[in-house]
Amino acid sequence: MPVNLSPPNPAKLLPVAGLRLGVTEAGIRKPGRKDLTVLLLDEGASVGGVFTQNRFCAAPVQVCRQHLDQGQPVRALVINTGNANAGTGDDGLRHTRATCEALAALLKIAPAQVLPFSTGVIMEPLPAERIAAGLPAAIADARADHWARAAEGIMTTDTVPKAFSARATVGGAEITVTGIAKGAGMIRPNMATMLGFLATDARIDQAVMKQLALELAEGSFNRITIDGDTSTNDSFIVIATNRAANAPVTALDSADGQALKRALLDVARQLAQAIVRDGEGATKFITVRVEGGQSAEECRRVAYAIAHSPLVKTAFFASDPNLGRILAAVGYAGIDDLDQTQIELYLDDVHVATQGGRHSSYREEDGQRVMKQAEITVRVNLGRGSAADTVWTTDLSHEYVSINADYRS
Amino acid sequence: MPVNLSPPNPAKLLPVAGLRLGVTEAGIRKPGRKDLTVLLLDEGASVGGVFTQNRFCAAPVQVCRQHLDQGQPVRALVINTGNANAGTGDDGLRHTRATCEALAALLKIAPAQVLPFSTGVIMEPLPAERIAAGLPAAIADARADHWARAAEGIMTTDTVPKAFSARATVGGAEITVTGIAKGAGMIRPNMATMLGFLATDARIDQAVMKQLALELAEGSFNRITIDGDTSTNDSFIVIATNRAANAPVTALDSADGQALKRALLDVARQLAQAIVRDGEGATKFITVRVEGGQSAEECRRVAYAIAHSPLVKTAFFASDPNLGRILAAVGYAGIDDLDQTQIELYLDDVHVATQGGRHSSYREEDGQRVMKQAEITVRVNLGRGSAADTVWTTDLSHEYVSINADYRS
Repeated sequence: MPVNLSPPNPAKLLPVAGLRLGVTEAGIRKPGRKDLTVLLLDEGASVGGVFTQNRFCAAPVQVCRQHLDQGQPVRALVINTGNANAGTGDDGLRHTRATCEALAALLKIAPAQVLPFSTGVIMEPLPAERIAAGLPAAIADARADHWARAAEGIMTTDTVPKAFSARATVGGAEITVTGIAKGAGMIRPNMATMLGFLATDARIDQAVMKQLALELAEGSFNRITIDGDTSTNDSFIVIATNRAANAPVTALDSADGQALKRALLDVARQLAQAIVRDGEGATKFITVRVEGGQSAEECRRVAYAIAHSPLVKTAFFASDPNLGRILAAVGYAGIDDLDQTQIELYLDDVHVATQGGRHSSYREEDGQRVMKQAEITVRVNLGRGSAADTVWTTDLSHEYVSINADYRS
Repeated sequence: MPVNLSPPNPAKLLPVAGLRLGVTEAGIRKPGRKDLTVLLLDEGASVGGVFTQNRFCAAPVQVCRQHLDQGQPVRALVINTGNANAGTGDDGLRHTRATCEALAALLKIAPAQVLPFSTGVIMEPLPAERIAAGLPAAIADARADHWARAAEGIMTTDTVPKAFSARATVGGAEITVTGIAKGAGMIRPNMATMLGFLATDARIDQAVMKQLALELAEGSFNRITIDGDTSTNDSFIVIATNRAANAPVTALDSADGQALKRALLDVARQLAQAIVRDGEGATKFITVRVEGGQSAEECRRVAYAIAHSPLVKTAFFASDPNLGRILAAVGYAGIDDLDQTQIELYLDDVHVATQGGRHSSYREEDGQRVMKQAEITVRVNLGRGSAADTVWTTDLSHEYVSINADYRS
């Protein structure tokens, strides 16, 4: 049961000029399931991407990095579910390259102009022939208004497709942003999440695309966690089709660059939070805000310690204000010179702990009231500086265990 | 349901000359439960301890450190369950000191000769008066053969008391070692576990006791994890009553020191593994062995990444050989220059992956066979050196979620 998350309304998802999406059933793992998606780009698009820092990165991640580095204009993305093509050695690389070659042949482009993505079970051989056989149908299905269909096509254990749109004015022209993402478990992105695709018709110089992807990931997908497991396949791609009328954005720190980034970040963050809301077994959406740190990095470390603690997560599941568990997580987050007598803890508007101990005004029923909510903000002040950072996460429920004990069956 | 762990047979637990244990019901949190334990030492004992590295360490941990540093001979330990006295600020310190003073007055010793320990809920005021009121009964109960009773007295969510004994020959004389421990959740000791007490009648110089405690913890309690949550109260104490006939051990690297350490480590490791076997909701006992590293530290990091992964842990719970999840955890363990093509993975005797991909001889049914066992060894070879390390852990089951969603109720 996702937390305050509904399927996208296809009519409200904005097409991005110069980009079409097609989906088909290739029978990769299970019959009767949409499992193969292509994004087809007209000539002239700028593309940037960031990928998992997991050293066991999947074959498609390795090939994506190579193709982006080669600098040929990207013309197509191909995404399969049902198989991650990770932990598959040289065969995995061969299968991924074969997929790119098959799609390139159909589109009459070079294989290096194709970016491949896979998601699903790790360490099983990719059925590359089934993917190749499905490609013509996926291409034939491609339309500019198929964003919702593509959001569905890339799902694995997701229960709700994730897609959002926004409009903004950049460089004197209206631009459109639409993005899709998938992921519900093995979510602790480190550079990007398990497949996020964000597109805009804005004109953006190719030279800034990689940095743009990095900065967007830092403000969205790199701030969420469900189970602390960094996937082998995390990939986040930003596409600018360069069809809008804005003056081309050539620097991210310009006024236009900032306006553009705000619009893109708005959608990226909605996608990232949607992944948390649809987290495996999630019953709560938790915002962990850590303030008063010496650096954003140490705030982030504390926020992740809280967000990853199974004891904190089960307390949220139970709506039990067993909030000392949060203090314990703050204490083991790895700040060697942390002074526990400076710590303040809030649950939404409730001041729970002050100077490292329970606040005299704190009453169990106040904690209980907030813990029962579907959306909760944990706020910690470390009392040692002015830096801050925020992470979004879920609780840990019986359903998470059930889903992951059954995932392959 | 603990994994291959039975309650200790009181008749097989060896008394340690110069040490008596007493237990009572002080009504600290729930009525009708043994919750207050004292260990009374005759004059002349050597004592060393190590404590949690959690910066939110509990009041008793702070006082224990002070008392040990003051260097007065330790004569008594007092342990309450039902309340951790952590996240309790200055009041917590006052309550702990009051407990030490009350016991010191009854025993006619100095308060600094008492070491205090607490375990239970965090951030609730310690009922120091109830503890003081219970002390006379605990003292009256003290006997040298009450080890099993004390093991029961210090339990919280443990389902089985944990106590082991060993005999060894050191410095020409037979010595005795007996220890007790508690802990089942919030277990990822960093220096020591949530209350472990190890005693020997051997003659050991006080000067080496702290180092001895450190080294024993490193080989036992610092190698286990259940949920990755480092407790606020972890404390591990080693007591030598100096009653045996051995030549006093004055250096740990001497032949006698090594023999002594082996005997103590044998019991410490049994206690640490017993905590894992009785881990909250545990259905499996998992040994994670990482070899072929450049340093023991990096092996340990990889082992903990595997041992903490909720996805790996739920796969063990399900007996599902979804072993790609182990490779993913190896990949995000933080070794920046890890080469995935060098990784070998074994499950007991089954060679699962070679050179980063599935081994050609690997068959699902072989993985399935091992996964169904109650005790499983995961062995990873990183292929980059000759260092190794081992960590012990459990699976993640529905029962873990239930226990921690209900703990306070």
